[in-house]
Amino acid sequence: MLKTDYLNKIRRQNPLIHNITNIVVANYVANGLLALRASPIMSSAVEEMDELAAICNALVINIGTLTADQVKAMLQAGKAANRQGIPVVLDPVGVGATRFRQHTVARLLAEVQFSAIRGNAGEMAYLANVTWQSKGVDAGQGSADLDDIANIIAQQHRCVAVISGATDVISDGTRLAKIHNGTPLFPRITGSGCLLSAVCGAFLAVADPADAFSALSEACSAYAIAGELAAQGLQPNQNGQFYTALLDQLAALQAGQVRQLAKLQLAELNPKGVNDEDEEV
Amino acid sequence: MLKTDYLNKIRRQNPLIHNITNIVVANYVANGLLALRASPIMSSAVEEMDELAAICNALVINIGTLTADQVKAMLQAGKAANRQGIPVVLDPVGVGATRFRQHTVARLLAEVQFSAIRGNAGEMAYLANVTWQSKGVDAGQGSADLDDIANIIAQQHRCVAVISGATDVISDGTRLAKIHNGTPLFPRITGSGCLLSAVCGAFLAVADPADAFSALSEACSAYAIAGELAAQGLQPNQNGQFYTALLDQLAALQAGQVRQLAKLQLAELNPKGVNDEDEEV
Amino acid sequence: MLKTDYLNKIRRQNPLIHNITNIVVANYVANGLLALRASPIMSSAVEEMDELAAICNALVINIGTLTADQVKAMLQAGKAANRQGIPVVLDPVGVGATRFRQHTVARLLAEVQFSAIRGNAGEMAYLANVTWQSKGVDAGQGSADLDDIANIIAQQHRCVAVISGATDVISDGTRLAKIHNGTPLFPRITGSGCLLSAVCGAFLAVADPADAFSALSEACSAYAIAGELAAQGLQPNQNGQFYTALLDQLAALQAGQVRQLAKLQLAELNPKGVNDEDEEV
Repeated sequence: MLKTDYLNKIRRQNPLIHNITNIVVANYVANGLLALRASPIMSSAVEEMDELAAICNALVINIGTLTADQVKAMLQAGKAANRQGIPVVLDPVGVGATRFRQHTVARLLAEVQFSAIRGNAGEMAYLANVTWQSKGVDAGQGSADLDDIANIIAQQHRCVAVISGATDVISDGTRLAKIHNGTPLFPRITGSGCLLSAVCGAFLAVADPADAFSALSEACSAYAIAGELAAQGLQPNQNGQFYTALLDQLAALQAGQVRQLAKLQLAELNPKGVNDEDEEV
Repeated sequence: MLKTDYLNKIRRQNPLIHNITNIVVANYVANGLLALRASPIMSSAVEEMDELAAICNALVINIGTLTADQVKAMLQAGKAANRQGIPVVLDPVGVGATRFRQHTVARLLAEVQFSAIRGNAGEMAYLANVTWQSKGVDAGQGSADLDDIANIIAQQHRCVAVISGATDVISDGTRLAKIHNGTPLFPRITGSGCLLSAVCGAFLAVADPADAFSALSEACSAYAIAGELAAQGLQPNQNGQFYTALLDQLAALQAGQVRQLAKLQLAELNPKGVNDEDEEV
Repeated sequence: MLKTDYLNKIRRQNPLIHNITNIVVANYVANGLLALRASPIMSSAVEEMDELAAICNALVINIGTLTADQVKAMLQAGKAANRQGIPVVLDPVGVGATRFRQHTVARLLAEVQFSAIRGNAGEMAYLANVTWQSKGVDAGQGSADLDDIANIIAQQHRCVAVISGATDVISDGTRLAKIHNGTPLFPRITGSGCLLSAVCGAFLAVADPADAFSALSEACSAYAIAGELAAQGLQPNQNGQFYTALLDQLAALQAGQVRQLAKLQLAELNPKGVNDEDEEV
């Protein structure tokens, strides 16, 4: 049962979200944040990372179309955000696919403290060092336990781990939330995961850091429910209509709808489900 | 009362508009120019700036996701456009937010002669050195007189200044136009200002340079009216639908509609409204 | 008469398509490939070109917003794709417009073996060294024979040449196909050509290399028919609606529809139609 109402806080405060993101989804992420009533700013220029950290309320780092210049900006921005005390979200798009992405994410995780890491099952399995068959930037297939993967990442990196998919799995290392909302149309459009990462940034921007787990549970619920509402009345192949309708629903979504429609399942962490070796890192 | 009909001239001549623009809005700007029947070309490669100036009918410089490489291209392109005698529009996205943007815009204004500068109130207040509370790339809030801001910029930089917002304010330093058309849905989507800057470029591309003030008054009226028509029948939260409908309306818009629906207010400049110190620069 | 059914093979195999593409269309190309049930990955980072070639099923190189860094990545990626034996598609966007584009395409053609080159009439006329009046990245106008242009390119570069337009012309140097499907709304939106190039990549990804001509005939037919279906019930100026509807139709398109609606005309090459000098190159 959702107890928070950060959605309305976003609408009152209009937090400014700095996105270092990819050329594929920059537009959709900006429109999605605006729909939610957050303010997007996109920049990958190392020259302005420090100043943006001083005026923004959250930072979202997305490696979807990574370049060497962007890596420098990400490190600079992440450290500046840590100094300013604003939340930082990592979206490790396609991290398993190439060493460039692997090394960049390893360095980011070593030098920046993230509040949240949000990825699909394949990306998160790679981060948890669990066998998985990824496919480029798509989730791919595997049989590992998603709860374990989320817990391992949360504990290793002292953050909230969010695995999005048919069921979203959220862990802060001691608690676990599962969100059974959503629609099969989400993976049919590009950027639905990237936009969720930015939405997570917007919710963290207005939340108490100690309440990150709850804020992200609400973020994922709200986003998945907006998707459900957008898919209503659409055929499974109306990708284009869904792309547009999701923006409408993010803009129109009411806190009451989220509370009413959320299929949220909470659990305490089962310690046996976690890889002990990884916990020590 | 609008006297010009550059809209139909755009449709007859299909001017080629070179945009040095940001990764967020490049797609929407291209689609918007195509809807208007102008031809977009996007490039930030310094290697081809001179040649593009020779074949294009206008240049639009937008600093939304500025990089060091882009700065070089902007300077090269701006000077080449000046040599070729084609109009140049500046969109100083989020200029106040960081020194990188401030310094880049200062250098552009020093080395390139712009035909028009189009920004929101916060961006234009920064350029006029007037106190304003900007918010990243969004307009923010302030109490300064927009007429003064527009006049200061027009006089300082010998160009037409366009402040877009609920009411658009246009000044060439001696005349002032206000456009009371538009819709609250404009700021709810990303790139609505960036696209207006490109639309200004398309109108200037087909206008006599001496008629820039009138051409931009028509450009802003046409764009705001397309937005009004797109918003008809939409709810205030249908961001996604509006994004799509604006392209439809830009494509379908007729000169007769613009003349009929334009709420245009013209005035001679009130010299007392202008900061004398700034005029001398 | 279409004999192949690669459309369903794409849907079964979900080939992974690496796109080195431009900031204008990256989003639309990704959404279009997803609609078709292919998996897009966009990257221009030279650091990961070799590894991506090893996991992807096709490479599409698009020079729409070319940068010097991208040129390096394109060459690296193209050679790696050749080593891996995966098909490579070239989209020479606006190649005639500047020397930077001309030199880059010349170098790509010299160092990479392409399976297909897809462009509009202006771009392809430039490649065939035939006089044409191009306009930036748009097709422009000319009176040269498109059959000849396609044949020249196919023979010179030992690939399939695809000229898209009101009628698509496809040549492998010995056979010629013309596709009389489509809609005037295609050139009214940005990226309709770029997305077709990516769609060609998806069809080649699942086809036997010896069957490239047939696979591309089906690709162009399927894409043009999706456009026809998307345009049904739309006005000629509903650019925005068409942009969305094309994604819906690419997702919903059935092989039976393609076979039924295709207006495909096949011919053996007329040797007299070809410039002999060019053949020797």
